[in-house]
Amino acid sequence: MYNAGNGTIIFEKCPSIRSFAAVVGKKEGDGPFGKFFDMIEEDEYFGQESWEKAESEILRRSAFLAMNKGALKKENLDFAISGDLLNQCISSGYALRDMGVPFFGVYGACSTMAESLALGSLIIGGGGADNILCATSSHFCSAEKQFRTPLEYGGQRTPNAQWTVTGSGSAVVSSKSGNPRIEAITCGKIVDLGITDIGNMGAAMAPAFVDTLKTHLAMLGRKPSHYDLIVSGDLGIIGKSIAKELFNKEGLGEIPQYDDCGAMIFNQKEQDTHAGGSGCGCAASMLCGYILPEMKKGNLKNVLFAATGALMSPTATFQGESIPSISHAISIQA
Amino acid sequence: MYNAGNGTIIFEKCPSIRSFAAVVGKKEGDGPFGKFFDMIEEDEYFGQESWEKAESEILRRSAFLAMNKGALKKENLDFAISGDLLNQCISSGYALRDMGVPFFGVYGACSTMAESLALGSLIIGGGGADNILCATSSHFCSAEKQFRTPLEYGGQRTPNAQWTVTGSGSAVVSSKSGNPRIEAITCGKIVDLGITDIGNMGAAMAPAFVDTLKTHLAMLGRKPSHYDLIVSGDLGIIGKSIAKELFNKEGLGEIPQYDDCGAMIFNQKEQDTHAGGSGCGCAASMLCGYILPEMKKGNLKNVLFAATGALMSPTATFQGESIPSISHAISIQA
Repeated sequence: MYNAGNGTIIFEKCPSIRSFAAVVGKKEGDGPFGKFFDMIEEDEYFGQESWEKAESEILRRSAFLAMNKGALKKENLDFAISGDLLNQCISSGYALRDMGVPFFGVYGACSTMAESLALGSLIIGGGGADNILCATSSHFCSAEKQFRTPLEYGGQRTPNAQWTVTGSGSAVVSSKSGNPRIEAITCGKIVDLGITDIGNMGAAMAPAFVDTLKTHLAMLGRKPSHYDLIVSGDLGIIGKSIAKELFNKEGLGEIPQYDDCGAMIFNQKEQDTHAGGSGCGCAASMLCGYILPEMKKGNLKNVLFAATGALMSPTATFQGESIPSISHAISIQA
Repeated sequence: MYNAGNGTIIFEKCPSIRSFAAVVGKKEGDGPFGKFFDMIEEDEYFGQESWEKAESEILRRSAFLAMNKGALKKENLDFAISGDLLNQCISSGYALRDMGVPFFGVYGACSTMAESLALGSLIIGGGGADNILCATSSHFCSAEKQFRTPLEYGGQRTPNAQWTVTGSGSAVVSSKSGNPRIEAITCGKIVDLGITDIGNMGAAMAPAFVDTLKTHLAMLGRKPSHYDLIVSGDLGIIGKSIAKELFNKEGLGEIPQYDDCGAMIFNQKEQDTHAGGSGCGCAASMLCGYILPEMKKGNLKNVLFAATGALMSPTATFQGESIPSISHAISIQA
């Protein structure tokens, strides 16, 4: 692999994405992409006793499903890389506790799926492993409880609020040549333009996405038109429109093939999610449920998947801090 | 690099540890290793307004100090890899926000220094970068506030409680050959033997350390005597004695050159820290302040650094969950 600078790595021998799976909750299943997900669970507790344990269970299911689809046993995995939004990343830690696979925990907020894929492909690309499980999850109820107000309180949501996706995506990155494959990555820098409104994550994260996109294109000498689809993680409706404004400001022009997983996953008119979806599981389930299968079918050839994360915590927000954001980009080729 | 299995990678061209720095608080400076640390700060707020911001400031100082000692500017860093104990890893996120270096956030609880070094050396070993900053931090006050009781409450600490180290260690892993160097790593599996007492982290983490140590030695066909020093991260006095028992149970025999950073960093008789030190900053500051300099001086030749982390959260504990633990081992050669 070759380091082109500014966090951009180009793979000579491209790691493939051997198998993948997406597991979501009922609301996501009712959305416009419902038919694409591998598993839709009606029970928001996923058969567990708490929302945190439910989130672990989603991740466990998507991980084992991805392994099964790739005919892989846990013995075939060299590493598992996973993280999530919960304090101390307990969804990942408990989900993979019994798997017995060497484990790297990561924290990239909602950029986690791209971060785990980036690290997984860096290890595979360098010859350090054959199969790496990359995963993440989120759950509407565990996220509301931790980041916002108790659900029982029934607080009014602001118009710019996003709805945390209940879902998980898992993918196995592999040294075997295959389709689709990861041909380049750009690891993002932390970008913070001083947004302090935690009800408006899209506005905080949009500049990080555009920064990474611009860097990625510059380092590879590409135009946006190289890609059939450029997709951000969970900017939602508002963040997506800000990103589009920034494209023009940054000289990237109109990018008609740009979309955002948070803007896509729910039906805005019927599902009342205000500014769209968010959470680690948003980009992860859209990638593993819709985008990668479309690539396998030949309906998409070059995709830039750039999940986006806001690195604040409630404590930092209470202390008046603004929201540092990050976005990692994965260039996937069919 | 070569994957020997079970999370163990052997480097053909060994990444070097180009520079490193340790910054600690007053209590750590008063301990037996006080004279080794690069900077001791008397003010527990490190000039900031909150403990969380203080912890970010420690990390920022150790990071810039490590870069300065290696004559490196931020432009020379390909990536920064960092994580910490605070919810959503805000110490790392805010500390490195303005650095403008491509950033991978990690979460390995108190194993984070070993995790960041493992990932850093995997990327360097695979030819993906020239210089990677690997860092972590902890702060007694921010950790007590988040994981235990408000400090103002003045609660009685149990005899098996450990004292979170206020400190940070940063190291730059480099592709240039140099001294000391990382010659192999073992990424640990999650181990959970059902310990639920969060006052007894050493007992929860000791089996994970011994599991990783045993795997590391088996995969490399080595005996413990290969190393001048085998050091765990923050098992403390109780965890250290449990680890020693487990050495015998697991057929590793007596390991006289074994010690634990948590058992070393404070003077047990005079500093009243009960079962010793803990926290991400414990292993990190002992590595960057004492162990690596001793290697450079030629006083230590082969060191196995195995930081240890407990992957639970207060929420998981309140829900009756046991403590999943992990330990990653870094074999360093002078």
